[in-house]
Amino acid sequence: MCQPGTVTTPSPAGTPPAVGPAAGPSDHAAGNPDRPDVCVLGLGLIGGSLLRAAVAAGRTVWGYNRSAESVREAEEAGYDVSGDLPAVLRRAAASQALLVIAVPLPAVDGVAAAIAEHAPHCPITDVVSVKRPMADALAAHGLDARYVGGHPMAGTAESGWSAGHGALFDGAVWVVAADDGADPEVWTQVACLAEDCGSVVVPAGSTEHDDAVARVSHLPHLLAEALAIAGADDQLALSLAAGSFRDGTRVAATDPLLVRAMCEGNADAVVTALDETLAVLAKARDALAAGDGIADLAGRGHVARREYEHTRRSRIEGLQPGVPGWIEQLRDAGRAGGVWARPLDEGHR
Amino acid sequence: MCQPGTVTTPSPAGTPPAVGPAAGPSDHAAGNPDRPDVCVLGLGLIGGSLLRAAVAAGRTVWGYNRSAESVREAEEAGYDVSGDLPAVLRRAAASQALLVIAVPLPAVDGVAAAIAEHAPHCPITDVVSVKRPMADALAAHGLDARYVGGHPMAGTAESGWSAGHGALFDGAVWVVAADDGADPEVWTQVACLAEDCGSVVVPAGSTEHDDAVARVSHLPHLLAEALAIAGADDQLALSLAAGSFRDGTRVAATDPLLVRAMCEGNADAVVTALDETLAVLAKARDALAAGDGIADLAGRGHVARREYEHTRRSRIEGLQPGVPGWIEQLRDAGRAGGVWARPLDEGHR
Repeated sequence: MCQPGTVTTPSPAGTPPAVGPAAGPSDHAAGNPDRPDVCVLGLGLIGGSLLRAAVAAGRTVWGYNRSAESVREAEEAGYDVSGDLPAVLRRAAASQALLVIAVPLPAVDGVAAAIAEHAPHCPITDVVSVKRPMADALAAHGLDARYVGGHPMAGTAESGWSAGHGALFDGAVWVVAADDGADPEVWTQVACLAEDCGSVVVPAGSTEHDDAVARVSHLPHLLAEALAIAGADDQLALSLAAGSFRDGTRVAATDPLLVRAMCEGNADAVVTALDETLAVLAKARDALAAGDGIADLAGRGHVARREYEHTRRSRIEGLQPGVPGWIEQLRDAGRAGGVWARPLDEGHR
Repeated sequence: MCQPGTVTTPSPAGTPPAVGPAAGPSDHAAGNPDRPDVCVLGLGLIGGSLLRAAVAAGRTVWGYNRSAESVREAEEAGYDVSGDLPAVLRRAAASQALLVIAVPLPAVDGVAAAIAEHAPHCPITDVVSVKRPMADALAAHGLDARYVGGHPMAGTAESGWSAGHGALFDGAVWVVAADDGADPEVWTQVACLAEDCGSVVVPAGSTEHDDAVARVSHLPHLLAEALAIAGADDQLALSLAAGSFRDGTRVAATDPLLVRAMCEGNADAVVTALDETLAVLAKARDALAAGDGIADLAGRGHVARREYEHTRRSRIEGLQPGVPGWIEQLRDAGRAGGVWARPLDEGHR
C-alpha cells in the first residue's frame, strides 16, 4: 500500500515527502516521486470519491468542477476545490501534479485542450470507463507521452459529488492501462494512487480492457434492460417474479444516461460482444423450438459460472516498471488474472 | 392462515378436526374439509420441503419416494414415508387425502397411472413448474376432475431430500391454477396447503402461468447462462467482472438438469419469450452499430425495472370459491396482481 503510515523507507534524498497544496516542483522532486500531488478534474461520483479517498490517504489533492454548486458543497466539506480550470491547471503545472481526468467522455476534448494550454507536461490519468477512445482523445492534443489511463471498476446507481464517498474504491479493481510506450514513472504514480484509494490494480492493454468490459460490464447492462422489458406491463408476471428476475434486472435500475454513456462510448466492442451472445441465444432458441433442448447452453453456462466463482487473483511480484519488457510482462500477467503489487524493495507495503 | 393454532371457529359438526395418519374417511368428513390429510409423492427439494412444512403446520402428512436412501433419511428424521407407491396411494384413498405430485415432469405419467389405479377419486395437486403440460398429463389418465395445479415459486441451486427444509416456502408466491371447471373444494384445499406452508397464493390460469414464468423465470436463466459463457475462458475479463456480471450470472450456478427441465418443459412459451427478447436486443444492437445509441433500450428497461420495484400486491378479499363466476374472478384478480386470502367468515385467519 502507498498509505503514508506504511511508508517505512526514507525518501531518496533523506528529506521529508512533499506536503501542502502549495508545494512547488522543487518540493516534489525532493519528495516521493511515486506520490506527487493530485489534481482531480471533475468531481462527480467517481472524481469526487477519488478526491476524498486520496485526501484520506494523506495525499495532497485539489480539484476542479464546472458546477458552482458542487464546488461550494465540496468547499463546505473542507476540500480544496475551484471552478477556475486554468488556475487549477497552472497550479498543477507548478508542482507537476498527477492530473486525473474525471469528466464524462464527451467532455474530455475540452478538458484536454485546457491541459495542453496550461499544464502540457504534467503526468495524466483518467477514470473514464473506456480506454481506447481516451488514449485517442489525448493523443489528438499531443498529450499521450505522459498519459497512462485508468478505470476504477466501482460505481453506484447514483451520480454527482453528493453521491460520492471515500470508501467507494475499497477492494475494487482499478485497471491501469499497460500500452506500449507507457512512461514507467507515470504508470507507477497511477498504480500508487489506485492503491492509496484502496483498490486492487489490474494491468491491461487499452483495447483488451475495452473488449473485456464490453463483455462483463456493458453486456450485463444490456441483458438486464431487455429482461426488465420482458416483464413490463404484466402484473401477473411481476407477481410471480422471484430471485432470478430480481437479480437479472438489478442493474437496469442504473441511470439510463450512465448506461448509454458506457455502452455508446464502447460501441464497437459492445456490438461484437452482443453479436456473440445473440448467436449463442439464437442457437439455443432453435434447439428448443426443434425439441432438441438446451443441454449445450445450460451445460456451458454452468461450467462458465463455476469458473467465475473459482477465479483467483495472483500477485504480480517483483516487476519494476521501466525494466526491459516490463509493459508486455504486465499485460501478460493481467491476462492471466494477475494483480500488480509494488515491488517490496520500494518499502511501500 | 390455515395453521391449527389460528383456527378459532369450531369445525362444522362441532367435533374436533381429524388427526393422525390413520384417520379414515369418516374422520375426515367430521374434520375440516379444507385441511385433509396430505400425501406427498416425491421427496426431492420441493416435495421434501413441503412434507416438512406441512407437518410443522400440524397437518397429517405422509410421503412416498422412489429412492430407498431418501426414504431412510426421511424416516430417520421422524417422518412418515415409504417406498411402496401402491400402499401409500391406497392409504390416501382411504382418507381422501390431498395428493401432491412432486416428481419431475418426465416422471409424472408413471405416477398418474398409479393414482388412476389406486386412488382415482382423491383430490390432486402438484408442485411442477409448468401447469399446462401437467393438466394434459392428468387428463390423459382421466384425473382432471379433482386436479388443481400448483407451483410454489421457491427453490435453490441444490436438490434432493437432504437439501430441503420446512421454511423453503416462507413468503414465497405459490400459484394455484384457476382454470375453468376447477373443483372449488379442491381449489380451497390446495390454497390452504400453500398458506399452511407459509406461502402467498396467486391464482392464475395454467396457460397464463406458463407464459408468465417463461418470461420472469425461464428467460432469466437462459440469459444468465449466455452471459456466463460471454465471460468464459478469459481471465482478464473475469478479473474485471464486478456486480453486474456477478448478479447477472447468479442463476447459471443452478444444476443444468433443473434448468433444462424447466425450460424444455415449457418450450413453446420460452421460445416466444426468447424471440421477443432477441428482437429487443437485435434492435438495440443495430442502433448501436449505426451510431444511434441505445436510448430506447436503456430508457424502457429502466422504467420497467422501476415498475417491478414498485409492484404492490393487493388482497383478493371476500371471494368464496364455488360462487357463480368465482374462477374468472380469481383469474382476473391474479392478472391485476392480486393475492388470494381465505374468506374471513371461514374463521381461518
